[in-house]
Amino acid sequence: MTNRIEVGVLGATGTVGGRLVDLLQNHPWFRIAELSASPKAAGHRFGSVGSEAAEALPESIRALSLQDPYADWSSPLLLSALPSAVADNLESELAHRGHIVVSNASSHRLDDDVPLVIPEINPDHLSLVERQAERWSGAIVTNPNCSVVGLTLALAPLHDRFRIEKVMVTTLQSLSGAGRRGVSALDAVDNVIPYIAGEEEKLSQEPRKILGALGEGGIVPADFTLSAQTHRVPVRYGHTLAVAVKLSERASVDQVVEVLSNFTGRALDERLPSAPPRPIEVLREEARPQPRLDRDRAGGMTVSVGRVRRCEVLDIKFTVLVHNLVRGAAGAALLNAELCQVCGLNAAALARLQ
Amino acid sequence: MTNRIEVGVLGATGTVGGRLVDLLQNHPWFRIAELSASPKAAGHRFGSVGSEAAEALPESIRALSLQDPYADWSSPLLLSALPSAVADNLESELAHRGHIVVSNASSHRLDDDVPLVIPEINPDHLSLVERQAERWSGAIVTNPNCSVVGLTLALAPLHDRFRIEKVMVTTLQSLSGAGRRGVSALDAVDNVIPYIAGEEEKLSQEPRKILGALGEGGIVPADFTLSAQTHRVPVRYGHTLAVAVKLSERASVDQVVEVLSNFTGRALDERLPSAPPRPIEVLREEARPQPRLDRDRAGGMTVSVGRVRRCEVLDIKFTVLVHNLVRGAAGAALLNAELCQVCGLNAAALARLQ
Amino acid sequence: MTNRIEVGVLGATGTVGGRLVDLLQNHPWFRIAELSASPKAAGHRFGSVGSEAAEALPESIRALSLQDPYADWSSPLLLSALPSAVADNLESELAHRGHIVVSNASSHRLDDDVPLVIPEINPDHLSLVERQAERWSGAIVTNPNCSVVGLTLALAPLHDRFRIEKVMVTTLQSLSGAGRRGVSALDAVDNVIPYIAGEEEKLSQEPRKILGALGEGGIVPADFTLSAQTHRVPVRYGHTLAVAVKLSERASVDQVVEVLSNFTGRALDERLPSAPPRPIEVLREEARPQPRLDRDRAGGMTVSVGRVRRCEVLDIKFTVLVHNLVRGAAGAALLNAELCQVCGLNAAALARLQ
Amino acid sequence: MTNRIEVGVLGATGTVGGRLVDLLQNHPWFRIAELSASPKAAGHRFGSVGSEAAEALPESIRALSLQDPYADWSSPLLLSALPSAVADNLESELAHRGHIVVSNASSHRLDDDVPLVIPEINPDHLSLVERQAERWSGAIVTNPNCSVVGLTLALAPLHDRFRIEKVMVTTLQSLSGAGRRGVSALDAVDNVIPYIAGEEEKLSQEPRKILGALGEGGIVPADFTLSAQTHRVPVRYGHTLAVAVKLSERASVDQVVEVLSNFTGRALDERLPSAPPRPIEVLREEARPQPRLDRDRAGGMTVSVGRVRRCEVLDIKFTVLVHNLVRGAAGAALLNAELCQVCGLNAAALARLQ
Repeated sequence: MTNRIEVGVLGATGTVGGRLVDLLQNHPWFRIAELSASPKAAGHRFGSVGSEAAEALPESIRALSLQDPYADWSSPLLLSALPSAVADNLESELAHRGHIVVSNASSHRLDDDVPLVIPEINPDHLSLVERQAERWSGAIVTNPNCSVVGLTLALAPLHDRFRIEKVMVTTLQSLSGAGRRGVSALDAVDNVIPYIAGEEEKLSQEPRKILGALGEGGIVPADFTLSAQTHRVPVRYGHTLAVAVKLSERASVDQVVEVLSNFTGRALDERLPSAPPRPIEVLREEARPQPRLDRDRAGGMTVSVGRVRRCEVLDIKFTVLVHNLVRGAAGAALLNAELCQVCGLNAAALARLQ
Repeated sequence: MTNRIEVGVLGATGTVGGRLVDLLQNHPWFRIAELSASPKAAGHRFGSVGSEAAEALPESIRALSLQDPYADWSSPLLLSALPSAVADNLESELAHRGHIVVSNASSHRLDDDVPLVIPEINPDHLSLVERQAERWSGAIVTNPNCSVVGLTLALAPLHDRFRIEKVMVTTLQSLSGAGRRGVSALDAVDNVIPYIAGEEEKLSQEPRKILGALGEGGIVPADFTLSAQTHRVPVRYGHTLAVAVKLSERASVDQVVEVLSNFTGRALDERLPSAPPRPIEVLREEARPQPRLDRDRAGGMTVSVGRVRRCEVLDIKFTVLVHNLVRGAAGAALLNAELCQVCGLNAAALARLQ
Repeated sequence: MTNRIEVGVLGATGTVGGRLVDLLQNHPWFRIAELSASPKAAGHRFGSVGSEAAEALPESIRALSLQDPYADWSSPLLLSALPSAVADNLESELAHRGHIVVSNASSHRLDDDVPLVIPEINPDHLSLVERQAERWSGAIVTNPNCSVVGLTLALAPLHDRFRIEKVMVTTLQSLSGAGRRGVSALDAVDNVIPYIAGEEEKLSQEPRKILGALGEGGIVPADFTLSAQTHRVPVRYGHTLAVAVKLSERASVDQVVEVLSNFTGRALDERLPSAPPRPIEVLREEARPQPRLDRDRAGGMTVSVGRVRRCEVLDIKFTVLVHNLVRGAAGAALLNAELCQVCGLNAAALARLQ
Repeated sequence: MTNRIEVGVLGATGTVGGRLVDLLQNHPWFRIAELSASPKAAGHRFGSVGSEAAEALPESIRALSLQDPYADWSSPLLLSALPSAVADNLESELAHRGHIVVSNASSHRLDDDVPLVIPEINPDHLSLVERQAERWSGAIVTNPNCSVVGLTLALAPLHDRFRIEKVMVTTLQSLSGAGRRGVSALDAVDNVIPYIAGEEEKLSQEPRKILGALGEGGIVPADFTLSAQTHRVPVRYGHTLAVAVKLSERASVDQVVEVLSNFTGRALDERLPSAPPRPIEVLREEARPQPRLDRDRAGGMTVSVGRVRRCEVLDIKFTVLVHNLVRGAAGAALLNAELCQVCGLNAAALARLQ
């Protein structure tokens, strides 16, 4: 454990950042060395700023002094849970300084030279970082939007086997996806909000990049079309997605269930510590998945798929449930950091910064 | 008011039946004369059986003695809020005895000779009752499932103007749709249930009958295909529907908004007292309709449509909100009873039964 | 209606202010002439600032331009729904300029010369405003905290008849009491918050002033002691209070029920238009009052009391339910404004300002 | 592990029974050998009856066949999560047959010869079972009502040190306390129910027995008086209690905090495996304990106490949070079963039944 690589977490007191810190405790490869919140929190102890996340953590982590996010970081690997407005410039600056920035923010996801990665699906896309050499010595690696993670994990094995042509998705998203200040309690009791700013755009763009092909000129997005309708519902954790797909190749419900059930993800030379035993679990019961019963499968890292059946308009429809804070955000970033480790990016940054 | 026609309500102590009794108070054409609950409640006062609905009602109604639903009814017009299991035989029997049975139950909705009516859309289908003469002297008239009412009101003007080819609908339905015993509180806190028994079948069949053409041989269902995914969410009243449609004729978003906004429903010789000024209200705000803000529009009789926009997969998508207990059930039945009145069915039944 | 007095509402876009505007429409004595929100909203139309309250209002009110709250007001009567931090100085300044300021803010409630009034209980306290002549030409009149209104209405008839010695109260308060930004949705799902800043202090002080005696030297507070424990629960509207009292004079449960049931409030020369027919309604059912069933009694102006029974530790215990936004805030202020009208304060201010 | 004693669970498919089965997996002393649900479920596999509890359990337990609860049981130790209506006669019958029945039901809690035990408080009361020898060869041992467990754990150290004279308690209880069929979802959204059948009686009687003295003639109940007001709130797990106490001996807030913080429970010769490191955790933060943040402390076995402060009417007030299904029910019964084991009751029953 003494040789663990040092990690900094940006935005550590938010909903996602707190989960990241929690997941990083006792990590076999990484050790939390630095944390930041807003510039004005700089100098305060992590354990003193009222973050729920900090509460259950050991004193060694609670005692860490929050640093100014714009100041120097010594850790080669930085995990970013920054809000997009801040991430845009700050992550670029940190990449410029030579760090590997593994980000949950949306700012750079669609940049041509920035990998948008789910390790079970497109680990090869990580090599896009080589193109960033023109911009800076470090690198930015991103994970998708929380709903996109759940959707794309379910689409990947189907696209691989049957080629997807069209996707319709309607989301029922939890309140935690909006962060602590995102939704007023008055809008969350006895109500549904049929709009989430920016969410439908992310859902229609990101899956195509993730499932795209890496070629000479970069990523060629997968050529299916996707339409999304997003809603906020009174649930704390867990996004539910009603999905329908049209496939190029005819597939029976049984074949789809089989392909989803057998999905293990791309084989890597080394197993990532945070990867769940199975990325997808297919449920056969009539009224599942449900957030309260299924969101914590494999610590929140396994996506649940249920109600696979024929669609009268497209071909197949089903329900997906993803823990938005774990598989959809903090766990997604951590998996990517582990992939960077396996690929030697973190070691290179360490050498660069010393 | 002295010549108001007498009405009986079957299933008066349930969620829908209670609303019916409430809506029937002070009705200009009808007067509540008889009520029933389960056979074992027979003989008890309506006001004494612990029904919430009964609480706020005047003593004249609370004092009514509940009758055995299987016993004789004297009212020519019977409004049925019976559960389907009971409605199946009992409604047939009552039609046999000569009554006009206006039913919210699903039992007879798809019978070839039973009208499935939304007065603003297909009042002409009421004439199907003539075909029931082979079965009995009375008649059964039905209204659609609660989600179907909202969906079909939004589809009708589009089908009329642009012809609908395909419909995808995902519902976020309120708890009251399941009745008092339908959902445990433990499933309704911090949760979504992605399945409602029988609901997707109703959604894929009933709109096609309602929007179908009445010909020599009965109803020819509209020939679009429809795929539904249904969910129960922690909301008390108001079903939200995420809808996408493919149209035969090209339509811009503005045209769709215009057609929906201008929809007034089929003109009838006489205005139905429970008909709202406008069956559909189109909202322009970004995050609307919302159940808590929009469900009570026009006392719950107006359906709200929002977020009309282009769909990347089909043509147009939008959000519909319908008050499931009012426009989707009790109010739907009452409107049908008023249509029966206008068409002389109630008067004929009165003559028959005297 | 042409001679209605002009009224300004401060803080019109907040939760309480919005209710005030709503209640003031079609008021027989008052006419909304001026509205303010924050200084930076000045100049915008009321209907354009996204306030839910504004939505359902007629265009004549929606079209009103929001004014800077610190600028000149022409209306003699100003209803204040300001947050306390702002109310403190601004209300004083407005009184200084000669206005009658009827305030829902807590800033001045305990000032020696400021009446804290519930018209059914202590209308005579309004004469305290004469003492304000030393400070300014106008006057400030306040209503109590939302929970205090419900509690004190239930205590008043008991104190009058049996003298109260001790009160224990535990509250289960709705989310709307905290305003739109008060509670995060994440704290309001599947949770209770056992603390509300400043609330227990208000509950232990304000009832004693309201039930105090007006003498030569001002108000002598009632001499009972009061202990409060306050909680926020996942309810939108309606504060539930579990109350226990010790009485000087022995009282049976039946006597308490009778005294509460018969309470009509102090007789005034003229009936206040917003006063409910009965300030208190005593419910006999086992599991009542409940927020969703009872909060809207008399438009939210009647307080419900239930479960009156013997207390093993003090003497009598019972449950109180008050609609926090209506009887507990906007309706409370409006009643006080009507009392000011009856007492000639508004007319005097009008003369002063012209 | 081979010598673990065999255990039967009655009512295994209910909310409490399911938790018991869950807690019994991998228990160091006990092994689940038999399970029952209702008589009509007899013969079905535990894993097939749709119980949520069964889902996450290993196949070895899911494969167990449910037996008729009235048939013969071979396990010496039976843990009962039966509803009271059934528990009354059936538990007596099972004690008659020689079993040790450790029950969560209320039926026998107040029987003179039945111990009502919280091991940290009154393990000595277990010797009451000797008096049951007149009735049967086995024994019944009970744990208190879920709210009573939380309350009495907080009262015990105070009573020990300062003698309690009076207690006022207002509860905000979670929905799971009522079981799956207990509360309709329609009563649990945006609502509070100010009544729970039988709960106030249990709260006023059971703590006095638990804190009573075991003498020659049985238990002499503690002589304080207690008044309770109980409410159901929209929370899934975790009962919040607002408590105020009057003490014989004067105590400062600091002394009370110290006594509560230092409470470790009665020393036993052997540590019970399910006993938490600390039965009580005192929280210093302003707005704690909260169900969602604090109910799972020590797996749900530690009770949280917060907001200790002076009471204006009695002496001291504070907030208690107890996980109703764990510390308040399944975990309470399991602790008692462990106490029976330590005291040799289970071994004696085993000998008796072989």
